[in-house]
Amino acid sequence: MLGGSASHAAVAASFFNPARLVGVVGNDFPKRYVDLYRRHKIDLEGLQIVPGKTFHWSGEYEINMNHRRTLLTELGVFETFTPKLPESYRESRFVLLANIAPSLQHHVLTQMKRPRFVVADTMDLWLNIALPDLLKLIKQIDGFVLNDSEAHQLTKEDNVFAAIRKIHRLGPRYVIIKKGSHGSILSGPRGFFICPAYPLSRVVDPTGAGDSFVGGMMGWLARARGSIDDNIRKAMVYGSVVASFCCEGFGLLRTTRVRPVEIENRFRELRKLTNF
Amino acid sequence: MLGGSASHAAVAASFFNPARLVGVVGNDFPKRYVDLYRRHKIDLEGLQIVPGKTFHWSGEYEINMNHRRTLLTELGVFETFTPKLPESYRESRFVLLANIAPSLQHHVLTQMKRPRFVVADTMDLWLNIALPDLLKLIKQIDGFVLNDSEAHQLTKEDNVFAAIRKIHRLGPRYVIIKKGSHGSILSGPRGFFICPAYPLSRVVDPTGAGDSFVGGMMGWLARARGSIDDNIRKAMVYGSVVASFCCEGFGLLRTTRVRPVEIENRFRELRKLTNF
Repeated sequence: MLGGSASHAAVAASFFNPARLVGVVGNDFPKRYVDLYRRHKIDLEGLQIVPGKTFHWSGEYEINMNHRRTLLTELGVFETFTPKLPESYRESRFVLLANIAPSLQHHVLTQMKRPRFVVADTMDLWLNIALPDLLKLIKQIDGFVLNDSEAHQLTKEDNVFAAIRKIHRLGPRYVIIKKGSHGSILSGPRGFFICPAYPLSRVVDPTGAGDSFVGGMMGWLARARGSIDDNIRKAMVYGSVVASFCCEGFGLLRTTRVRPVEIENRFRELRKLTNF
Repeated sequence: MLGGSASHAAVAASFFNPARLVGVVGNDFPKRYVDLYRRHKIDLEGLQIVPGKTFHWSGEYEINMNHRRTLLTELGVFETFTPKLPESYRESRFVLLANIAPSLQHHVLTQMKRPRFVVADTMDLWLNIALPDLLKLIKQIDGFVLNDSEAHQLTKEDNVFAAIRKIHRLGPRYVIIKKGSHGSILSGPRGFFICPAYPLSRVVDPTGAGDSFVGGMMGWLARARGSIDDNIRKAMVYGSVVASFCCEGFGLLRTTRVRPVEIENRFRELRKLTNF
Protein backbone atom coordinates (compact mmCIF):
# COMPACT_ATOMS: atom_id res chain seq x y z
CA MET A 1 0.00 0.00 0.00
CA LEU A 2 0.99 3.65 -0.32
CA GLY A 3 3.61 4.73 2.19
CA GLY A 4 7.00 6.37 2.35
CA SER A 5 8.28 9.46 4.09
CA ALA A 6 7.27 11.86 1.35
CA SER A 7 3.68 10.57 1.22
CA HIS A 8 3.15 10.65 4.97
CA ALA A 9 4.86 14.00 5.47
CA ALA A 10 3.17 15.73 2.54
CA VAL A 11 -0.31 14.52 3.50
CA ALA A 12 0.31 15.58 7.13
CA ALA A 13 1.54 19.02 6.06
CA SER A 14 -1.43 19.43 3.72
CA PHE A 15 -3.82 19.81 6.66
CA PHE A 16 -2.18 23.14 7.42
CA ASN A 17 -0.52 24.45 4.27
CA PRO A 18 -0.17 23.43 0.62
CA ALA A 19 2.73 21.01 0.23
CA ARG A 20 5.14 20.40 -2.61
CA LEU A 21 6.40 16.87 -3.05
CA VAL A 22 9.74 15.74 -4.44
CA GLY A 23 10.21 12.06 -5.16
CA VAL A 24 10.22 9.25 -7.64
CA VAL A 25 7.89 6.36 -8.45
CA GLY A 26 7.89 3.70 -11.16
CA ASN A 27 5.38 3.42 -13.96
CA ASP A 28 3.66 0.73 -11.84
CA PHE A 29 2.52 3.43 -9.40
CA PRO A 30 -1.29 3.22 -9.14
CA LYS A 31 -3.20 6.22 -10.40
CA ARG A 32 -5.39 6.15 -7.28
CA TYR A 33 -2.37 7.21 -5.23
CA VAL A 34 -1.73 10.16 -7.52
CA ASP A 35 -5.40 11.04 -7.07
CA LEU A 36 -4.95 10.78 -3.30
CA TYR A 37 -2.08 13.29 -3.43
CA ARG A 38 -4.24 15.56 -5.58
CA ARG A 39 -7.15 15.41 -3.15
CA HIS A 40 -4.72 16.73 -0.55
CA LYS A 41 -3.75 19.54 -2.94
CA ILE A 42 -0.15 18.34 -2.99
CA ASP A 43 1.89 19.93 -5.75
CA LEU A 44 3.27 17.05 -7.83
CA GLU A 45 5.53 18.94 -10.21
CA GLY A 46 8.49 17.44 -8.34
CA LEU A 47 7.22 13.87 -8.60
CA GLN A 48 9.15 11.92 -11.21
CA ILE A 49 7.38 8.97 -12.79
CA VAL A 50 9.97 6.82 -14.57
CA PRO A 51 10.11 3.36 -16.16
CA GLY A 52 10.63 0.62 -13.58
CA LYS A 53 9.30 -0.50 -10.22
CA THR A 54 8.31 1.79 -7.36
CA PHE A 55 10.33 1.49 -4.15
CA HIS A 56 8.84 -1.13 -1.87
CA TRP A 57 9.35 -1.80 1.83
CA SER A 58 7.81 -4.29 4.18
CA GLY A 59 8.45 -4.91 7.84
CA GLU A 60 6.98 -6.21 11.03
CA TYR A 61 6.60 -4.76 14.50
CA GLU A 62 7.14 -6.35 17.87
CA ILE A 63 4.00 -6.77 19.85
CA ASN A 64 4.49 -3.50 21.75
CA MET A 65 5.03 -1.54 18.50
CA ASN A 66 8.26 -0.01 19.75
CA HIS A 67 10.65 -1.93 17.51
CA ARG A 68 10.29 -2.72 13.87
CA ARG A 69 12.17 -5.13 11.68
CA THR A 70 12.60 -4.74 7.95
CA LEU A 71 11.48 -7.81 6.04
CA LEU A 72 12.09 -6.59 2.51
CA THR A 73 13.45 -3.52 0.75
CA GLU A 74 13.25 -3.27 -3.04
CA LEU A 75 14.84 -0.05 -4.22
CA GLY A 76 13.46 -0.15 -7.77
CA VAL A 77 13.55 3.29 -9.39
CA PHE A 78 14.93 4.70 -6.15
CA GLU A 79 18.29 3.18 -6.96
CA THR A 80 19.14 5.80 -9.56
CA PHE A 81 17.02 8.65 -8.21
CA THR A 82 18.41 12.15 -8.23
CA PRO A 83 15.97 14.67 -6.82
CA LYS A 84 15.61 17.58 -9.18
CA LEU A 85 13.59 20.53 -7.97
CA PRO A 86 11.20 22.26 -10.39
CA GLU A 87 11.92 25.95 -10.67
CA SER A 88 8.64 26.68 -8.89
CA TYR A 89 9.83 24.82 -5.76
CA ARG A 90 13.14 26.58 -5.30
CA GLU A 91 11.84 29.51 -3.37
CA SER A 92 9.92 27.39 -0.86
CA ARG A 93 10.56 28.83 2.57
CA PHE A 94 10.06 25.68 4.62
CA VAL A 95 11.98 22.62 3.58
CA LEU A 96 11.65 19.16 5.04
CA LEU A 97 14.41 16.80 3.99
CA ALA A 98 12.58 13.60 4.83
CA ASN A 99 14.37 10.30 5.27
CA ILE A 100 16.56 9.40 2.28
CA ALA A 101 20.33 9.12 1.73
CA PRO A 102 21.91 12.27 3.24
CA SER A 103 23.79 12.97 0.00
CA LEU A 104 20.41 13.30 -1.75
CA GLN A 105 19.03 15.45 1.06
CA HIS A 106 22.05 17.65 0.55
CA HIS A 107 21.47 17.73 -3.19
CA VAL A 108 17.92 19.02 -2.61
CA LEU A 109 19.22 21.68 -0.27
CA THR A 110 21.75 23.00 -2.81
CA GLN A 111 18.86 23.64 -5.23
CA MET A 112 16.96 25.85 -2.77
CA LYS A 113 17.12 29.63 -2.80
CA ARG A 114 17.50 30.99 0.72
CA PRO A 115 14.93 28.82 2.54
CA ARG A 116 13.78 30.16 5.90
CA PHE A 117 13.72 26.92 7.88
CA VAL A 118 15.25 23.61 6.88
CA VAL A 119 14.64 20.43 8.86
CA ALA A 120 16.11 17.00 8.14
CA ASP A 121 14.98 13.61 9.31
CA THR A 122 17.08 10.45 9.05
CA MET A 123 17.18 6.76 9.97
CA ASP A 124 19.63 4.32 11.54
CA LEU A 125 20.66 3.01 8.10
CA TRP A 126 22.35 6.32 7.21
CA LEU A 127 24.12 6.46 10.55
CA ASN A 128 25.54 3.06 9.67
CA ILE A 129 26.47 3.50 6.01
CA ALA A 130 26.62 7.25 5.29
CA LEU A 131 27.68 8.97 8.50
CA PRO A 132 30.17 11.41 6.89
CA ASP A 133 27.46 12.58 4.45
CA LEU A 134 25.00 12.96 7.30
CA LEU A 135 27.45 14.97 9.41
CA LYS A 136 28.10 17.25 6.45
CA LEU A 137 24.37 17.73 5.91
CA ILE A 138 23.43 18.54 9.48
CA LYS A 139 25.97 21.37 9.61
CA GLN A 140 23.78 23.16 7.08
CA ILE A 141 20.29 22.73 8.44
CA ASP A 142 18.26 24.48 11.11
CA GLY A 143 16.56 21.48 12.69
CA PHE A 144 17.47 17.83 13.00
CA VAL A 145 14.81 15.24 13.85
CA LEU A 146 15.70 11.73 14.97
CA ASN A 147 14.42 9.13 17.36
CA ASP A 148 15.92 8.33 20.75
CA SER A 149 17.72 5.19 19.67
CA GLU A 150 19.27 7.03 16.71
CA ALA A 151 20.37 9.85 19.03
CA HIS A 152 22.04 7.24 21.20
CA GLN A 153 23.67 5.62 18.18
CA LEU A 154 24.96 8.95 16.87
CA THR A 155 26.37 10.30 20.13
CA LYS A 156 27.02 7.15 22.22
CA GLU A 157 25.18 8.98 25.02
CA ASP A 158 22.60 6.96 26.96
CA ASN A 159 21.03 10.04 28.45
CA VAL A 160 18.83 11.79 25.90
CA PHE A 161 19.59 15.30 27.18
CA ALA A 162 23.32 14.65 27.08
CA ALA A 163 22.84 13.32 23.53
CA ILE A 164 20.96 16.48 22.54
CA ARG A 165 23.84 18.64 23.75
CA LYS A 166 26.26 16.73 21.53
CA ILE A 167 23.94 16.94 18.52
CA HIS A 168 23.74 20.74 18.85
CA ARG A 169 27.53 20.79 18.59
CA LEU A 170 27.22 19.10 15.19
CA GLY A 171 25.34 22.11 13.86
CA PRO A 172 21.56 22.27 14.22
CA ARG A 173 20.05 24.95 16.46
CA TYR A 174 16.89 22.86 16.83
CA VAL A 175 17.10 19.22 17.84
CA ILE A 176 13.93 17.14 18.08
CA ILE A 177 14.02 13.67 19.59
CA LYS A 178 11.07 11.42 18.81
CA LYS A 179 10.17 8.91 21.51
CA GLY A 180 7.15 7.17 19.96
CA SER A 181 4.30 6.79 22.46
CA HIS A 182 6.33 8.79 25.00
CA GLY A 183 6.09 11.94 22.87
CA SER A 184 9.03 14.05 21.77
CA ILE A 185 11.53 16.58 23.04
CA LEU A 186 12.56 19.83 21.42
CA SER A 187 15.78 21.59 22.26
CA GLY A 188 16.12 25.04 20.75
CA PRO A 189 17.03 28.66 21.44
CA ARG A 190 14.27 28.87 24.07
CA GLY A 191 15.36 25.70 25.84
CA PHE A 192 13.56 22.39 26.05
CA PHE A 193 9.97 21.61 25.23
CA ILE A 194 8.43 18.33 26.37
CA CYS A 195 5.85 17.50 23.69
CA PRO A 196 3.17 14.94 24.54
CA ALA A 197 1.96 12.06 22.40
CA TYR A 198 -1.79 11.73 22.09
CA PRO A 199 -3.00 8.77 24.22
CA LEU A 200 -4.07 5.88 22.00
CA SER A 201 -5.38 2.69 23.52
CA ARG A 202 -4.99 0.90 20.21
CA VAL A 203 -2.21 1.34 17.69
CA VAL A 204 -2.96 -0.30 14.37
CA ASP A 205 0.21 0.63 12.46
CA PRO A 206 2.85 3.15 13.57
CA THR A 207 4.53 3.18 10.14
CA GLY A 208 4.79 6.77 8.98
CA ALA A 209 4.00 8.29 12.38
CA GLY A 210 7.40 9.99 12.57
CA ASP A 211 6.97 11.39 9.06
CA SER A 212 3.44 12.54 9.88
CA PHE A 213 4.76 14.24 12.99
CA VAL A 214 7.45 16.23 11.25
CA GLY A 215 5.30 16.84 8.16
CA GLY A 216 2.47 18.19 10.30
CA MET A 217 4.94 20.32 12.23
CA MET A 218 6.42 21.84 9.07
CA GLY A 219 2.98 22.40 7.56
CA TRP A 220 1.82 24.25 10.63
CA LEU A 221 5.04 26.31 10.82
CA ALA A 222 4.66 27.28 7.17
CA ARG A 223 1.17 28.57 7.85
CA ALA A 224 1.90 30.35 11.14
CA ARG A 225 2.75 34.00 11.48
CA GLY A 226 5.56 35.17 13.73
CA SER A 227 8.91 33.68 14.59
CA ILE A 228 9.84 30.01 14.52
CA ASP A 229 10.36 30.14 18.29
CA ASP A 230 6.88 31.56 18.83
CA ASN A 231 5.33 28.73 16.84
CA ILE A 232 7.42 25.59 17.00
CA ARG A 233 5.86 24.18 20.17
CA LYS A 234 2.34 24.39 18.81
CA ALA A 235 3.62 23.08 15.49
CA MET A 236 5.05 20.01 17.24
CA VAL A 237 1.78 19.37 19.06
CA TYR A 238 -0.11 19.58 15.76
CA GLY A 239 2.44 17.16 14.31
CA SER A 240 1.86 14.87 17.27
CA VAL A 241 -1.89 14.97 16.63
CA VAL A 242 -1.53 14.03 12.96
CA ALA A 243 0.86 11.23 13.97
CA SER A 244 -1.77 9.88 16.35
CA PHE A 245 -4.28 9.58 13.52
CA CYS A 246 -1.62 7.93 11.35
CA CYS A 247 -1.22 5.19 14.00
CA GLU A 248 -4.94 4.42 13.94
CA GLY A 249 -4.95 2.87 10.49
CA PHE A 250 -2.68 0.98 8.13
CA GLY A 251 -0.54 3.15 5.92
CA LEU A 252 -2.36 6.38 5.13
CA LEU A 253 -5.87 4.92 5.45
CA ARG A 254 -6.79 6.84 8.61
CA THR A 255 -4.74 9.96 7.97
CA THR A 256 -6.37 10.70 4.64
CA ARG A 257 -9.81 10.57 6.25
CA VAL A 258 -9.03 13.05 9.04
CA ARG A 259 -11.25 16.12 9.21
CA PRO A 260 -9.85 19.49 10.38
CA VAL A 261 -12.23 19.54 13.35
CA GLU A 262 -10.77 16.22 14.58
CA ILE A 263 -7.30 17.72 14.51
CA GLU A 264 -8.46 20.76 16.48
CA ASN A 265 -10.22 18.55 19.03
CA ARG A 266 -7.14 16.45 19.73
CA PHE A 267 -4.98 19.56 19.93
CA ARG A 268 -7.30 21.02 22.57
CA GLU A 269 -7.43 17.68 24.36
CA LEU A 270 -3.63 17.58 24.56
CA ARG A 271 -3.73 21.01 26.17
CA LYS A 272 -6.06 19.67 28.83
CA LEU A 273 -4.12 16.43 29.24
CA THR A 274 -0.91 18.28 30.05
CA ASN A 275 -2.29 21.20 32.03
CA PHE A 276 -1.49 21.44 35.76
CA MET B 1 23.52 3.38 52.79
CA LEU B 2 20.06 4.49 53.87
CA GLY B 3 17.34 3.60 51.42
CA GLY B 4 14.02 1.82 51.23
CA SER B 5 10.55 2.90 50.18
CA ALA B 6 9.60 4.30 53.58
CA SER B 7 12.73 6.44 53.84
CA HIS B 8 12.46 7.87 50.34
CA ALA B 9 8.71 8.44 50.49
CA ALA B 10 8.71 9.98 53.98
CA VAL B 11 11.56 12.36 53.22
CA ALA B 12 9.88 13.36 49.94
CA ALA B 13 6.55 13.96 51.69
CA SER B 14 8.26 15.96 54.43
CA PHE B 15 8.95 18.84 52.04
CA PHE B 16 5.22 19.52 51.93
CA ASN B 17 3.63 18.08 55.06
CA PRO B 18 4.74 16.30 58.26
CA ALA B 19 5.04 12.56 57.60
CA ARG B 20 4.51 9.56 59.84
CA LEU B 21 6.67 6.56 59.16
CA VAL B 22 5.83 2.90 59.77
CA GLY B 23 8.61 0.36 59.45
CA VAL B 24 11.20 -1.81 61.09
CA VAL B 25 14.96 -1.69 61.42
CA GLY B 26 17.47 -3.82 63.33
CA ASN B 27 19.55 -2.65 66.26
CA ASP B 28 22.41 -2.20 63.78
CA PHE B 29 20.57 0.80 62.29
CA PRO B 30 22.93 3.80 62.50
CA LYS B 31 21.80 6.61 64.76
CA ARG B 32 22.68 9.14 62.07
CA TYR B 33 19.83 7.83 59.96
CA VAL B 34 17.40 8.31 62.83
CA ASP B 35 18.76 11.83 63.12
CA LEU B 36 18.19 12.30 59.40
CA TYR B 37 14.52 11.33 59.77
CA ARG B 38 14.24 13.72 62.70
CA ARG B 39 15.72 16.60 60.74
CA HIS B 40 12.92 16.03 58.27
CA LYS B 41 10.41 16.16 61.14
CA ILE B 42 9.29 12.61 60.38
CA ASP B 43 7.20 11.10 63.16
CA LEU B 44 9.00 7.92 64.22
CA GLU B 45 6.50 6.51 66.69
CA GLY B 46 5.71 3.81 64.12
CA LEU B 47 9.35 2.85 63.60
CA GLN B 48 10.14 -0.43 65.34
CA ILE B 49 13.77 -1.00 66.30
CA VAL B 50 14.23 -4.68 67.11
CA PRO B 51 17.16 -7.06 67.71
CA GLY B 52 18.68 -8.31 64.46
CA LYS B 53 19.91 -6.96 61.17
CA THR B 54 18.26 -4.21 59.15
CA PHE B 55 16.89 -5.17 55.72
CA HIS B 56 19.54 -4.79 53.07
CA TRP B 57 19.28 -4.60 49.29
CA SER B 58 21.86 -4.08 46.61
CA GLY B 59 21.51 -4.00 42.87
CA GLU B 60 22.96 -2.68 39.69
CA TYR B 61 21.57 -0.70 36.78
CA GLU B 62 22.05 -1.12 33.09
CA ILE B 63 23.95 1.70 31.50
CA ASN B 64 20.78 3.54 30.46
CA MET B 65 19.33 3.35 34.00
CA ASN B 66 16.05 1.89 32.76
CA HIS B 67 16.52 -1.64 34.09
CA ARG B 68 17.85 -2.73 37.41
CA ARG B 69 19.01 -6.10 38.62
CA THR B 70 18.96 -7.19 42.23
CA LEU B 71 22.32 -8.45 43.42
CA LEU B 72 21.47 -9.19 47.04
CA THR B 73 18.44 -9.08 49.32
CA GLU B 74 18.87 -9.76 53.04
CA LEU B 75 15.51 -9.61 54.79
CA GLY B 76 16.89 -9.49 58.35
CA VAL B 77 14.28 -8.13 60.78
CA PHE B 78 11.91 -7.64 57.85
CA GLU B 79 11.29 -11.37 57.78
CA THR B 80 9.04 -11.32 60.84
CA PHE B 81 7.80 -7.73 60.56
CA THR B 82 4.17 -6.98 61.29
CA PRO B 83 3.38 -3.31 60.92
CA LYS B 84 1.58 -2.04 63.99
CA LEU B 85 0.22 1.47 63.86
CA PRO B 86 0.56 3.71 66.92
CA GLU B 87 -2.80 5.04 68.08
CA SER B 88 -1.71 8.53 66.99
CA TYR B 89 -1.33 7.38 63.37
CA ARG B 90 -4.73 5.78 62.95
CA GLU B 91 -6.59 8.91 61.99
CA SER B 92 -4.11 9.98 59.33
CA ARG B 93 -6.10 11.10 56.32
CA PHE B 94 -3.55 10.35 53.63
CA VAL B 95 -2.08 6.88 53.58
CA LEU B 96 0.70 5.67 51.33
CA LEU B 97 1.12 1.91 51.34
CA ALA B 98 4.64 1.87 49.97
CA ASN B 99 6.19 -1.22 48.45
CA ILE B 100 6.04 -4.24 50.78
CA ALA B 101 4.14 -7.56 50.72
CA PRO B 102 0.51 -6.74 49.88
CA SER B 103 -0.72 -8.71 52.91
CA LEU B 104 1.22 -6.27 55.13
CA GLN B 105 -0.07 -3.28 53.17
CA HIS B 106 -3.53 -4.65 53.82
CA HIS B 107 -2.75 -5.11 57.50
CA VAL B 108 -1.81 -1.43 57.76
CA LEU B 109 -5.00 -0.43 56.02
CA THR B 110 -7.19 -2.39 58.46
CA GLN B 111 -5.72 -0.36 61.33
CA MET B 112 -6.71 2.97 59.80
CA LYS B 113 -9.83 4.87 60.78
CA ARG B 114 -11.58 6.24 57.73
CA PRO B 115 -8.63 7.58 55.77
CA ARG B 116 -9.48 10.09 53.06
CA PHE B 117 -7.12 8.91 50.33
CA VAL B 118 -5.21 5.65 50.22
CA VAL B 119 -2.57 4.93 47.60
CA ALA B 120 -0.60 1.73 47.21
CA ASP B 121 2.63 1.11 45.35
CA THR B 122 3.98 -2.34 44.51
CA MET B 123 6.76 -4.16 42.66
CA ASP B 124 7.10 -7.03 40.20
CA LEU B 125 8.02 -9.44 43.01
CA TRP B 126 4.50 -9.27 44.48
CA LEU B 127 2.91 -9.73 41.09
CA ASN B 128 4.94 -12.94 40.86
CA ILE B 129 4.52 -14.39 44.34
CA ALA B 130 1.51 -12.70 45.98
CA LEU B 131 -0.90 -11.78 43.20
CA PRO B 132 -4.10 -12.88 45.05
CA ASP B 133 -3.14 -10.70 48.05
CA LEU B 134 -2.40 -7.79 45.75
CA LEU B 135 -5.71 -8.13 43.90
CA LYS B 136 -7.52 -8.19 47.25
CA LEU B 137 -5.68 -5.08 48.39
CA ILE B 138 -6.26 -2.98 45.32
CA LYS B 139 -10.02 -3.46 45.59
CA GLN B 140 -9.84 -1.39 48.77
CA ILE B 141 -7.65 1.52 47.81
CA ASP B 142 -8.23 4.81 45.98
CA GLY B 143 -5.06 4.94 43.96
CA PHE B 144 -2.69 2.34 42.58
CA VAL B 145 0.81 3.29 41.46
CA LEU B 146 2.94 0.99 39.35
CA ASN B 147 5.45 1.23 36.57
CA ASP B 148 4.78 0.48 32.93
CA SER B 149 6.40 -2.94 32.91
CA GLU B 150 4.41 -3.95 36.01
CA ALA B 151 1.21 -2.73 34.37
CA HIS B 152 2.04 -4.91 31.39
CA GLN B 153 2.80 -7.88 33.65
CA LEU B 154 -0.45 -7.44 35.58
CA THR B 155 -2.78 -7.01 32.62
CA LYS B 156 -0.91 -8.68 29.72
CA GLU B 157 -1.68 -5.51 27.77
CA ASP B 158 1.16 -4.01 25.75
CA ASN B 159 -0.60 -0.71 25.31
CA VAL B 160 -0.38 1.34 28.51
CA PHE B 161 -3.82 2.94 28.08
CA ALA B 162 -5.44 -0.43 27.52
CA ALA B 163 -3.62 -1.68 30.64
CA ILE B 164 -4.94 1.28 32.65
CA ARG B 165 -8.51 0.44 31.66
CA LYS B 166 -8.08 -3.09 32.95
CA ILE B 167 -6.50 -1.91 36.21
CA HIS B 168 -9.46 0.39 36.89
CA ARG B 169 -11.68 -2.69 36.64
CA LEU B 170 -9.68 -4.22 39.50
CA GLY B 171 -10.84 -1.45 41.82
CA PRO B 172 -8.81 1.76 42.01
CA ARG B 173 -10.37 5.00 40.76
CA TYR B 174 -6.93 6.50 40.30
CA VAL B 175 -4.26 4.63 38.36
CA ILE B 176 -0.79 6.11 38.02
CA ILE B 177 1.74 4.57 35.67
CA LYS B 178 5.38 5.52 36.23
CA LYS B 179 7.55 5.59 33.12
CA GLY B 180 10.93 6.68 34.57
CA SER B 181 12.55 9.40 32.48
CA HIS B 182 9.41 9.51 30.29
CA GLY B 183 7.30 10.84 33.16
CA SER B 184 4.05 9.35 34.37
CA ILE B 185 0.39 9.04 33.45
CA LEU B 186 -2.60 9.53 35.71
CA SER B 187 -5.99 8.11 34.92
CA GLY B 188 -8.74 9.31 37.23
CA PRO B 189 -12.26 10.72 37.38
CA ARG B 190 -11.18 13.71 35.29
CA GLY B 191 -9.51 11.59 32.63
CA PHE B 192 -5.85 11.32 31.81
CA PHE B 193 -3.01 13.56 32.88
CA ILE B 194 0.36 13.33 31.15
CA CYS B 195 2.89 14.25 33.84
CA PRO B 196 6.38 15.25 32.73
CA ALA B 197 9.69 14.10 34.20
CA TYR B 198 12.17 16.86 34.92
CA PRO B 199 14.95 16.78 32.28
CA LEU B 200 18.19 15.52 33.80
CA SER B 201 21.32 15.26 31.70
CA ARG B 202 22.98 13.12 34.35
CA VAL B 203 21.33 10.46 36.49
CA VAL B 204 23.54 9.33 39.36
CA ASP B 205 21.20 6.80 40.99
CA PRO B 206 17.50 6.33 40.22
CA THR B 207 16.97 4.09 43.28
CA GLY B 208 14.09 5.52 45.29
CA ALA B 209 12.89 7.84 42.54
CA GLY B 210 9.51 6.09 42.34
CA ASP B 211 9.10 6.28 46.12
CA SER B 212 10.12 9.93 46.09
CA PHE B 213 7.58 10.60 43.38
CA VAL B 214 4.64 9.05 45.20
CA GLY B 215 5.82 10.30 48.61
CA GLY B 216 6.11 13.85 47.31
CA MET B 217 2.71 13.52 45.66
CA MET B 218 1.03 12.34 48.87
CA GLY B 219 2.79 15.00 50.95
CA TRP B 220 1.58 17.71 48.63
CA LEU B 221 -1.97 16.31 48.54
CA ALA B 222 -2.04 16.20 52.33
CA ARG B 223 -1.13 19.87 52.49
CA ALA B 224 -3.41 21.08 49.71
CA ARG B 225 -6.89 22.44 50.22
CA GLY B 226 -9.75 21.41 47.99
CA SER B 227 -10.63 18.16 46.32
CA ILE B 228 -8.23 15.42 45.30
CA ASP B 229 -9.14 16.05 41.68
CA ASP B 230 -8.33 19.74 42.00
CA ASN B 231 -4.90 18.94 43.38
CA ILE B 232 -3.61 15.62 42.13
CA ARG B 233 -2.02 16.93 38.94
CA LYS B 234 0.05 19.51 40.78
CA ALA B 235 0.81 16.92 43.43
CA MET B 236 2.20 14.57 40.78
CA VAL B 237 4.37 17.32 39.31
CA TYR B 238 5.76 18.09 42.78
CA GLY B 239 6.41 14.38 43.20
CA SER B 240 8.17 14.37 39.85
CA VAL B 241 10.35 17.27 40.98
CA VAL B 242 11.40 15.53 44.21
CA ALA B 243 12.12 12.36 42.21
CA SER B 244 14.41 14.36 39.93
CA PHE B 245 16.49 15.47 42.89
CA CYS B 246 16.56 11.90 44.18
CA CYS B 247 18.17 10.78 40.90
CA GLU B 248 20.96 13.34 41.24
CA GLY B 249 22.68 11.63 44.15
CA PHE B 250 23.20 8.17 45.62
CA GLY B 251 20.48 7.05 48.02
CA LEU B 252 19.08 10.05 49.84
CA LEU B 253 22.24 12.17 49.61
CA ARG B 254 20.83 14.76 47.23
CA THR B 255 17.20 14.62 48.36
CA THR B 256 18.01 15.47 51.96
CA ARG B 257 19.89 18.59 50.86
CA VAL B 258 17.08 20.00 48.72
CA ARG B 259 15.88 23.48 49.65
CA PRO B 260 12.23 24.46 49.20
CA VAL B 261 13.16 27.17 46.70
CA GLU B 262 14.81 24.55 44.49
CA ILE B 263 11.59 22.55 44.45
CA GLU B 264 9.56 25.62 43.51
CA ASN B 265 12.01 26.51 40.76
CA ARG B 266 11.81 23.09 39.12
CA PHE B 267 8.03 23.08 39.44
CA ARG B 268 7.86 26.40 37.60
CA GLU B 269 10.38 25.17 35.06
CA LEU B 270 8.23 22.12 34.33
CA ARG B 271 5.31 24.47 33.67
CA LYS B 272 7.39 26.30 31.10
CA LEU B 273 8.80 23.10 29.62
CA THR B 274 5.34 21.73 28.87
CA ASN B 275 3.52 24.90 27.92
CA PHE B 276 2.37 25.38 24.33
